[in-house]
Amino acid sequence: MISELDLIRRIRDKAALADSSIIKGIGDDCAVLAAGGAETLTLVTTDTLVEGVHFDLSWHPPELLGRKAVAVNVSDIAAMGGSPRFALLSLAAPTTCETETLDLFMQGFMTALAAYRVTLIGGDTVRSDQGLVLSVTVLGEVDKRQVAYRSGARPGDRIWVSGFLGQAATGLEICRQRHTVLHKASPELTAAHLDPIPEMALGPALAKSGLVTAMIDMSDGLASDLAHVCEESGVGAIVYAKRLPISESTRQAARTLGLDPLQLAIAGGEDYRLLFTAPPAASEKILELAGHAAFGQLFKIGEIVDEQGVVLSTDDQNNRIDFQGYDHFGGR
Amino acid sequence: MISELDLIRRIRDKAALADSSIIKGIGDDCAVLAAGGAETLTLVTTDTLVEGVHFDLSWHPPELLGRKAVAVNVSDIAAMGGSPRFALLSLAAPTTCETETLDLFMQGFMTALAAYRVTLIGGDTVRSDQGLVLSVTVLGEVDKRQVAYRSGARPGDRIWVSGFLGQAATGLEICRQRHTVLHKASPELTAAHLDPIPEMALGPALAKSGLVTAMIDMSDGLASDLAHVCEESGVGAIVYAKRLPISESTRQAARTLGLDPLQLAIAGGEDYRLLFTAPPAASEKILELAGHAAFGQLFKIGEIVDEQGVVLSTDDQNNRIDFQGYDHFGGR
Repeated sequence: MISELDLIRRIRDKAALADSSIIKGIGDDCAVLAAGGAETLTLVTTDTLVEGVHFDLSWHPPELLGRKAVAVNVSDIAAMGGSPRFALLSLAAPTTCETETLDLFMQGFMTALAAYRVTLIGGDTVRSDQGLVLSVTVLGEVDKRQVAYRSGARPGDRIWVSGFLGQAATGLEICRQRHTVLHKASPELTAAHLDPIPEMALGPALAKSGLVTAMIDMSDGLASDLAHVCEESGVGAIVYAKRLPISESTRQAARTLGLDPLQLAIAGGEDYRLLFTAPPAASEKILELAGHAAFGQLFKIGEIVDEQGVVLSTDDQNNRIDFQGYDHFGGR
Repeated sequence: MISELDLIRRIRDKAALADSSIIKGIGDDCAVLAAGGAETLTLVTTDTLVEGVHFDLSWHPPELLGRKAVAVNVSDIAAMGGSPRFALLSLAAPTTCETETLDLFMQGFMTALAAYRVTLIGGDTVRSDQGLVLSVTVLGEVDKRQVAYRSGARPGDRIWVSGFLGQAATGLEICRQRHTVLHKASPELTAAHLDPIPEMALGPALAKSGLVTAMIDMSDGLASDLAHVCEESGVGAIVYAKRLPISESTRQAARTLGLDPLQLAIAGGEDYRLLFTAPPAASEKILELAGHAAFGQLFKIGEIVDEQGVVLSTDDQNNRIDFQGYDHFGGR
């Protein structure tokens, strides 16, 4: 077992201070940051991953877990239209945790920070009597003219998502069942769960375009995250089942696993795609933006209405689906 | 068991946004903060408390635990000479955790935030398969002319501490042994462990005075925290055993418990008193400052030297004591 000081030294050595607004990084009571300009707002977000609840080391490679711990926070920053800048890592590790596991975790964590141009400025390493608990806080920044909230959706706005839904939930089930055939057949599904890629370019681009009225990243699942947008905006939403982007591989895997692909798309969390709303007149420009090589596909899945609640519309019926999906406390 | 959304709502309702630099608090992907002035630096710190490692709910009243989760972070901000402003709470709670326990914890947490004038701006509530894990991040601010680092200690500087040493470690042992006689005889010892009060007024006052060359809050214990200062400053230190402020109640309790009071003072962590260094010529002014009614006693315990390492000097010998004390990973 590695000692706390050794771990801090290793982390610190890897956290080179390339950012001129960091007056003091790791190695004091606090990190010290210079203020941004008057036009810049600071974004702060935090996410905690608990072993046995959010990840299982028996199938989750530690380096991908390290990447994911960064990605889920960067996703929150992107969903506000901002760019991530600084990170703090709180790592509670059991004494039984192998040094190699922690090293691989840190390798993935630091690689992801470098990829997203984020600097580690602090954290805490503590012993856990039980499993590994990872708490990451990311600070970012955004131009005050382009910050995107959850609260701006208006009746008549169209609802968009920035990629396939239910991939991560399907991938999680493949991992849980250790279904090697499906894992080999559709590695993008397990990758969606193990190593999600946040919309770091698309989020700021959409916010900057001025076209979107509300934006959120989908961590809890479409039904819950859309319900958040509706609640914050004081509106409701209709989602058309037929329009939900469900990949062919998700459909095939769901069939093999005996799961309902529609349910995976609605209630499956952790896809980390963006959900956003925009007036109908903006649709053409949004599709143009989506044509940009760096971004994935955008899908229009429904619209914002006056009446509160999130409704799923299928051929023969309409059903309320608010907050269906992952409850971090109660499980599914 | 309370659901995540209910808990978020309860927390959110209690986190009134009284601070005009908070553009958006709880309820979006990130908190959004306006930048401070050009003369202001941002401070960021994070601390994690793990059930079974840092606290035991069988003796730690949840409301005091909530206060402590705030206090240990505020202490880091004070040790830089700053004032706390914003907090994020990541709470990983087992499904078996009583709603009442969480309510009492939150009551203590929010009461402490209010007392220190800190606003809750975000967080994450997740399920834990095992114990309660609390990760708190606090953002603060400090005037750029009065920030106090660990790194400014110079040979010849005197070493000061802002209160008794070893009280929290003695209090912890009284709790562990459920020693009701000692608990009743010296409630200040158990209080030092259960409900530490950070040096929120003294830290900024010392930094503002311009007298201190280095400052740290003692969370790991004198030996370790002084070793941090020496390492960051590229110096060494001599501490005189006779000068260590050990309260009479600590001595008495240590005798009853069969512990060495000197060892408790050197290696016992979590006193959250300040350790700082200042040139000899500043001593008089520092004692004047300590005469101020709001602050406790200050004790001069040793001096900074050229030769690296932390040395404890007793009547008959000198011993190296660097980094003796609490290792968050390995335990004692």
